[in-house]
Amino acid sequence: MIKERLIDDSDGESENDQTNILATQIQIPPDDVVPVFRARAVRPQSKYEGLDYDICENQLYENDLMKNEQHLKAKKDFARWIVSLFIGILTALVGCFIAISIEEISYYKYSWLQKAVQQNIIHGDLVMPYIFYVITNALPVMIGSILVTYVEPVATGSGIPLVKCYLNGIKIPKVVRLKTLAVKAVGVITSVCGGLAGGKEGPMVHCGAVIAAGISQGKSSSFNKDFKIFRYFRDDHEKRDFVVCGASAGVAAAFGAPIGGLLFALEEAASFWNQSLIWRTLFSAIVSSFTLNLVLTAYHGLENFTYHGLFNLGEFEALPFEYYELPIFMAMGAFGGLSGALWIKSNTTLNIFREKYIKQKWIRIIEAMMVAAISASFACLMMYLINDCRPLGNDPTLTPVQLFCDDNEYNAAASLWFQTPEQSVRSLFHDPPGSHKITTLLVFVPIYFFLSNITYGLNVSLGIFIPCLLVGAAWGRLVASFMALEFTGVKFINPGKYALIGAAAQLGGTVRMTISLAVILIETTGNIWFALPIILTLTSAKWMGDYFNDGIYDTQIHVANVPFLSWHTPNKLFMTKAKKIMSEDVVCVRMKESVEYIVGILKNTSYHGFPVIDQVADNDRKNGRLRGFILRTQLIVILEKSLFEETKRFWERTISIETFRNEYPRYKTIDEIRISRDKLAQKYTINMEVFMNPSPYKVNQLTSVSRIFMLFRALGLRHLCVVDENNLVTGIITRKDFLK
Amino acid sequence: MIKERLIDDSDGESENDQTNILATQIQIPPDDVVPVFRARAVRPQSKYEGLDYDICENQLYENDLMKNEQHLKAKKDFARWIVSLFIGILTALVGCFIAISIEEISYYKYSWLQKAVQQNIIHGDLVMPYIFYVITNALPVMIGSILVTYVEPVATGSGIPLVKCYLNGIKIPKVVRLKTLAVKAVGVITSVCGGLAGGKEGPMVHCGAVIAAGISQGKSSSFNKDFKIFRYFRDDHEKRDFVVCGASAGVAAAFGAPIGGLLFALEEAASFWNQSLIWRTLFSAIVSSFTLNLVLTAYHGLENFTYHGLFNLGEFEALPFEYYELPIFMAMGAFGGLSGALWIKSNTTLNIFREKYIKQKWIRIIEAMMVAAISASFACLMMYLINDCRPLGNDPTLTPVQLFCDDNEYNAAASLWFQTPEQSVRSLFHDPPGSHKITTLLVFVPIYFFLSNITYGLNVSLGIFIPCLLVGAAWGRLVASFMALEFTGVKFINPGKYALIGAAAQLGGTVRMTISLAVILIETTGNIWFALPIILTLTSAKWMGDYFNDGIYDTQIHVANVPFLSWHTPNKLFMTKAKKIMSEDVVCVRMKESVEYIVGILKNTSYHGFPVIDQVADNDRKNGRLRGFILRTQLIVILEKSLFEETKRFWERTISIETFRNEYPRYKTIDEIRISRDKLAQKYTINMEVFMNPSPYKVNQLTSVSRIFMLFRALGLRHLCVVDENNLVTGIITRKDFLK
Repeated sequence: MIKERLIDDSDGESENDQTNILATQIQIPPDDVVPVFRARAVRPQSKYEGLDYDICENQLYENDLMKNEQHLKAKKDFARWIVSLFIGILTALVGCFIAISIEEISYYKYSWLQKAVQQNIIHGDLVMPYIFYVITNALPVMIGSILVTYVEPVATGSGIPLVKCYLNGIKIPKVVRLKTLAVKAVGVITSVCGGLAGGKEGPMVHCGAVIAAGISQGKSSSFNKDFKIFRYFRDDHEKRDFVVCGASAGVAAAFGAPIGGLLFALEEAASFWNQSLIWRTLFSAIVSSFTLNLVLTAYHGLENFTYHGLFNLGEFEALPFEYYELPIFMAMGAFGGLSGALWIKSNTTLNIFREKYIKQKWIRIIEAMMVAAISASFACLMMYLINDCRPLGNDPTLTPVQLFCDDNEYNAAASLWFQTPEQSVRSLFHDPPGSHKITTLLVFVPIYFFLSNITYGLNVSLGIFIPCLLVGAAWGRLVASFMALEFTGVKFINPGKYALIGAAAQLGGTVRMTISLAVILIETTGNIWFALPIILTLTSAKWMGDYFNDGIYDTQIHVANVPFLSWHTPNKLFMTKAKKIMSEDVVCVRMKESVEYIVGILKNTSYHGFPVIDQVADNDRKNGRLRGFILRTQLIVILEKSLFEETKRFWERTISIETFRNEYPRYKTIDEIRISRDKLAQKYTINMEVFMNPSPYKVNQLTSVSRIFMLFRALGLRHLCVVDENNLVTGIITRKDFLK
Repeated sequence: MIKERLIDDSDGESENDQTNILATQIQIPPDDVVPVFRARAVRPQSKYEGLDYDICENQLYENDLMKNEQHLKAKKDFARWIVSLFIGILTALVGCFIAISIEEISYYKYSWLQKAVQQNIIHGDLVMPYIFYVITNALPVMIGSILVTYVEPVATGSGIPLVKCYLNGIKIPKVVRLKTLAVKAVGVITSVCGGLAGGKEGPMVHCGAVIAAGISQGKSSSFNKDFKIFRYFRDDHEKRDFVVCGASAGVAAAFGAPIGGLLFALEEAASFWNQSLIWRTLFSAIVSSFTLNLVLTAYHGLENFTYHGLFNLGEFEALPFEYYELPIFMAMGAFGGLSGALWIKSNTTLNIFREKYIKQKWIRIIEAMMVAAISASFACLMMYLINDCRPLGNDPTLTPVQLFCDDNEYNAAASLWFQTPEQSVRSLFHDPPGSHKITTLLVFVPIYFFLSNITYGLNVSLGIFIPCLLVGAAWGRLVASFMALEFTGVKFINPGKYALIGAAAQLGGTVRMTISLAVILIETTGNIWFALPIILTLTSAKWMGDYFNDGIYDTQIHVANVPFLSWHTPNKLFMTKAKKIMSEDVVCVRMKESVEYIVGILKNTSYHGFPVIDQVADNDRKNGRLRGFILRTQLIVILEKSLFEETKRFWERTISIETFRNEYPRYKTIDEIRISRDKLAQKYTINMEVFMNPSPYKVNQLTSVSRIFMLFRALGLRHLCVVDENNLVTGIITRKDFLK
């Protein structure tokens, strides 16, 4: 008998964490009862399961709807709006907390370092400041890395791949838990303050998703507290819909781009158009943007409200471009794609190496600290060697460092380092021409490219939007400088514009996002004239980059073996039929099935859904007419609560859909359920009719894969039954079947 | 035998227009062959049919794909991008043509009127100017109305309901024809220049849709010219996808809001997320916006590029709002909803009246001219009676009229009339406080409300966005004036801000658009701070308005009896089963069916699709296993080209999917096809296997309507087969079944 490791359908608590319950007393059914397990072809396994987005419209659901139809519907709709409002507000507040903390801590750190440099340089001693720099980098990073490594590993990295997966319909354990949020927020503060080459935007999106999942369920697994509200939102469908709101609120807060946030969530969920959900999502995003703007403006005590979100590219005047610049922009886009592809390749190789050889937790922490030290070292080296002196007042750096420059001058190379990466990006966009020596930028680009490359993949919470923008802005400005040299006498070449295009190119070439990124950048630049250059640049970058490899997030997801479904059917599967990709190893249950058999299949398979069949010849459960579909979680609850046909009179009037909702999302495993021996001996049965989904989606085995894929993606399915011309079950398709 | 009027599946040429072909020589099959026509329940009829959006993946399609797979795919993808580019460019050029024509003609008209007033007022004679005004109104309107009434009636009105219907999946005859485009463009110019209370935005969206449909097909029905390109785009699926691009390009050109355009198209198509289509749609929209900006800027000879689309609300400074203003905005929104509901009710009643009693074409033209005259009369009355004199220079009106004011003053009441409505909206947004007397606005609002109400529904090409914005901006400014009176000493109340909110409220209350309108307004105001007030205002307006009736477009569509599917299942149908709404009167064909029978069903029913069944007991075509689905248009082509089983060896190698594509979209009717008597006598048969869709979507008869509705909407279906547990066909569902 094949004993598969049972996969918990909860948010992924390993079985060790479960309290020790009396071992079940059931017997393993004899072989002839469950012959199907001696399968030749085993269904593809993955440790990641899908979300049950499809609504199970069984009799309990219908009863629930009919009970207090109008009243409950209005109440639920109102609750959805309230939850969306709070998702927006809380996401923004978390964003403010992160932004303000980073700002303040960075300011103190760099002011202190600046003073240390100024004081020590008189003695000609730069070793002390260097050591201070290393320490002020490594210490926060150590804290952040410890948190991520020991407290909540899921909080590592950007968080955007996790949110993408969740919206794609994949259940990654612990992705949307409060503990994850806490570690993520604190972690990103420590990482950015620790001078690592990264940003806070990706983590902000993840935070938004967690907040949404958390509020909407009205209970916290981390704190084991149930507020007993929003019980009607306790299923995968509602939760995923709220995470759509949360992700868009996160993007809105991170970039000050609510419409970009909406499109990001839509692009990743990529299912069908749900008008009311999308309206609420836009509302969430706008509330998030607004709250963040309000709080940050109040915090900075500004008279006029000019703050436009965390990711403030600053205002661009109506700076149009010449028609001959468009091909240049496209070339820059292509270069960004190339550069991005290279970045992805090297980063992925490095991470695979890390996965294989750097396994111990304490070594990962040391590694993170070392990278922080390396960042400091490169910074100091660059500042020391390049004497890029500019008169004060030109650059709005908060902490200008004089170094070896004359009085009333500051070192422009140093100013790239002695501030947060985001502030550096802003400078590169807005500094007047000639603010940086060509050498400075020429050296900075490969250094930062290298640093960001070794940083992404560390056990820290950090995103890659800002480093990509920074590298791109730097080489973009370089392009402008070269053009100014080459084509003197030509109309004025605005370096800020080229910095913007370079940033878009590099970012687009790395993350390969199209629609949402275009809209985010258009919104953030606040200038509709840049829409065309931006979209051309991103398209070039994507086409060039896609020639070599996938975007960084998709690559990460692929390397992690997550069954992620892209937007289009894989090319080679285009005209294949369902029959070819389906799993023939499908385990069915009869409409009235014995408890013994149910227990057997739950114990001996790891499948999460079973077609319900009838008209079975003898015990041949392989050939039956499809009548419905039942989930493992439902069977678990049925067994746990003893909802048997024979004891119907006891539970018939008392159960409702709440019986099932209350168990969500932590269901017991089959091993934890006690079924008394006599029930098995008396051959109790379960009547699926009440509980099953009576109209599961099904396709004929000759349907093309492209059609099935579209259905799967559009409806957010987890299982799809395959039938023949007589409606007999011949196979089943889950997302993993598309990726074989 | 029931003889239904055969509905042409073409773009709606009535049978009169068809050239007279020899009457077919077939005999009507005897009753016992087609017993099913004595149906008790007749399927719901509507003169509007659905689009065949679902791709028919039959053997011909597969052969075509396999033939030159990679090469053709790349070629098609490239072609799609080229078409999208040109959709954007051409839509913008048409927009420029319309905008520039209106601007120039209006300027000349009002300058001339202004001079006429100035000259004649010295004599105290205002009758001549008045008569001139009436003539310069009525004449263009007469031209426009003649065009619309006699040349192309489909071009009447806004055009947005037609585009909504098309994206909804309904085939309205002649909606996307070149002739329609021409009449629309010229018509809207005449209407706006004729001083009617309307705007050009809706017609612009329609123009975009026509351009898209036109270019993508590579041929023109109006000019009977086939350029023989893009033949692979000749089906409903591709055409509708391109119309998505075109509609968004139209919105982008009309409002300078490409992202709003994208969301408008997505909201109306409301199907599943198609990544590449949406990327191209955004590209189209941005190209459209950019081209329009470029051309208009060049035309105006401006140094700096500030022009932001036709619908230029002008720049708003970062004008935030106080927290106590938010409830005021929401109240204004609610008032807008109320006011909009009233507007819709009266306009709809008037239009129903027109439909019943004003039927002759020449009377409609007279009516339009009368309304133009009435507009002029009201304007003159208002200008004459209200002496709202302001010092020159305050108001950037191009043609200020002095009337009874002192020298160096101008009549502000007149300035509301002596310019295009769009220019008036802009003034109301940007004029400094005190530019208009309260009396002026107090009188203007009901006048314009009334005028716009009697204008919409005339036989002219004209939209309602601008009149709604104008009315709303006026009463918004009134609110600001009242508040300034009441709360003197409170912080400065910016009337422009209130004008914007009032405009949003009135427009939202009338059209009840949410997502796309919010994004359009946010983009157009160019100020992210207004996102929150705008979304709150629109939400209030929608909730308040929806309490009374549907939005104007939806009401029009409903009154026209178009089988339009909204975003959500109708409430009362929520838990109903498929069985209840399906049409049991379904006509099936066997896998190998006699030509006689096929001809019979084509002649005697008006159905457009037939399930293909097998395992039929005797001749009982009612109970068969569903094997596929065949469309009327396919059967027509099969009969026309004699693709019979018995003559297979003649055509087997020569036909391909092109055989069917070439006939699109004008198929012959069954009456026009000659089938020789001997073929019938020899009992020729058609083998459906090659031609039919082998994997049609189907649902079990116990599936809930909400599930079916979602499937229908998400996949853009036209037919959905209903089967029982044994896969036997029991019924069929089309969109009309949802609306019973």
